[in-house]
Amino acid sequence: MSILYALDLLGTAAFAASGAWAGVRRDMDLFGIVLLGLVTAIGGGTLRDLLLGAPPFILKDETYLYLSLIVSLLVFVFHRKMEFLRHPLQYFDAVGLGTFVVIGTGKALDYHIGFFGSVMMGVMTATAGGMIRDILSNQIPLVLQREVYASACIAGGILLYLLHLTVFPESWALVVAALTVIIVRLLAIKKGWSLPRAVNSDIR
Amino acid sequence: MSILYALDLLGTAAFAASGAWAGVRRDMDLFGIVLLGLVTAIGGGTLRDLLLGAPPFILKDETYLYLSLIVSLLVFVFHRKMEFLRHPLQYFDAVGLGTFVVIGTGKALDYHIGFFGSVMMGVMTATAGGMIRDILSNQIPLVLQREVYASACIAGGILLYLLHLTVFPESWALVVAALTVIIVRLLAIKKGWSLPRAVNSDIR
Amino acid sequence: MSILYALDLLGTAAFAASGAWAGVRRDMDLFGIVLLGLVTAIGGGTLRDLLLGAPPFILKDETYLYLSLIVSLLVFVFHRKMEFLRHPLQYFDAVGLGTFVVIGTGKALDYHIGFFGSVMMGVMTATAGGMIRDILSNQIPLVLQREVYASACIAGGILLYLLHLTVFPESWALVVAALTVIIVRLLAIKKGWSLPRAVNSDIR
Repeated sequence: MSILYALDLLGTAAFAASGAWAGVRRDMDLFGIVLLGLVTAIGGGTLRDLLLGAPPFILKDETYLYLSLIVSLLVFVFHRKMEFLRHPLQYFDAVGLGTFVVIGTGKALDYHIGFFGSVMMGVMTATAGGMIRDILSNQIPLVLQREVYASACIAGGILLYLLHLTVFPESWALVVAALTVIIVRLLAIKKGWSLPRAVNSDIR
Repeated sequence: MSILYALDLLGTAAFAASGAWAGVRRDMDLFGIVLLGLVTAIGGGTLRDLLLGAPPFILKDETYLYLSLIVSLLVFVFHRKMEFLRHPLQYFDAVGLGTFVVIGTGKALDYHIGFFGSVMMGVMTATAGGMIRDILSNQIPLVLQREVYASACIAGGILLYLLHLTVFPESWALVVAALTVIIVRLLAIKKGWSLPRAVNSDIR
Repeated sequence: MSILYALDLLGTAAFAASGAWAGVRRDMDLFGIVLLGLVTAIGGGTLRDLLLGAPPFILKDETYLYLSLIVSLLVFVFHRKMEFLRHPLQYFDAVGLGTFVVIGTGKALDYHIGFFGSVMMGVMTATAGGMIRDILSNQIPLVLQREVYASACIAGGILLYLLHLTVFPESWALVVAALTVIIVRLLAIKKGWSLPRAVNSDIR
């Protein structure tokens, strides 16, 4: 499953970059920027492991920590020269999203978690790190507001759960579910899709 | 113990509604509203289970997740027609408070946690979900500010701990402690009770 | 190791005082002030234990909880008369910082965590409680912004890890690493040291 690992590292790097960039924008110091990079990249998976009762993945394989650290340091030093990366970053972010969802839901299935819990673990793996980043930046988490972001994750998690009930080969199920998340997310970016809000909630 | 389970579900529904409503008021999208409903209803018990080293109750019995989801969706769709429920909601919320406290403290006692820890687990079960809701809404948690809310929980937790040291039958102890929380909370609403603040803190 | 325990309690008291004081300043009620005191004092160690899969230290030895409660109550009642303690408090805080780092990194080493993870556990033990305090106060955590605070912890954690690879006696390693944190922190206060920010980040 080395392609999944490679995509996982790519997603980790993209998430770390988005976290570190948020730290730069909030005028944090070096420690704050690195911590935001780390937390964004590994927060979701760590929370998932706590809930599953699994040893946190970051303590078993420190690659994720070093990678997030290095990416955060690069953003700290070169953020002005890396402006040209900001737009492509959202595509890498989408790849990370799909990968994180299938890793999260897949791990929950290994732990024999039910339907709702498994999908939730996938969504949490992909989105909780960004939520912690926003909380530490004293903002309402972006993912709670506009855009089709979490919903792409939910779709992928549900699909993976359903495929695992069939005879569909597991590694193909992972690929199909991850691609679903990535494609939905990229379409949402391109088309400007967003989820509905509560009707007339602006009146209150 | 099926009455306790029924009250637990009632409390879960009331907490989910309060969370989803907070999401509507903060103009969140559908995902944000559902997440706030879920987190408010199950956040406290989940945190308690993590600290006790118990498997999270939500992953063992997904009823809580589905119930919170359905209530949140109802609030999303019908929140304008449900205005008349906002006032009664605080009574259901009080019932949830009492139930959550005795479940939390009771579970800590099963795990042989000491006095302070057991009371803390009860209070946490009842209040941590609401705190996470407020953090995600970028507000100082309500429970840290005015009103007799957490204190009603503390009273109930202490009472349950003391009763468990006696020969008082366990199921009656749960009922007495839960009723104590509920009555104190309802009196606090009716009388406008609030906890003291630090003297002259407004001067600084 | 009773000196370490004594320093640990001193640090716990200093952290609880800083948390309770933050609650007074934010005009919280009695419960809010006590909760902020508790969370600041024990939040970091509790999070560390969750990640290590260790039973939370606060549930094994409730001394930490009672101490934090008493200190918070004292701040609540006497905060005006204790003004003269605010300046010295940062020295006690520095002692707590050093002690918490070596306890955290030391515990991670006992659990055979790698280099990055062990240092992270030390830094987290010392800083996560204060971050939760700031999040509950609806502020960007102080530690992410200015000043040499977390970096002193990182230095101490790295030093302890390196010393444990040598034949250096363990108890001396703890003392040397803790003193390093304390001295760096006190120098940083005295000299007004702070970590670099991203260059020209104010332009964006």
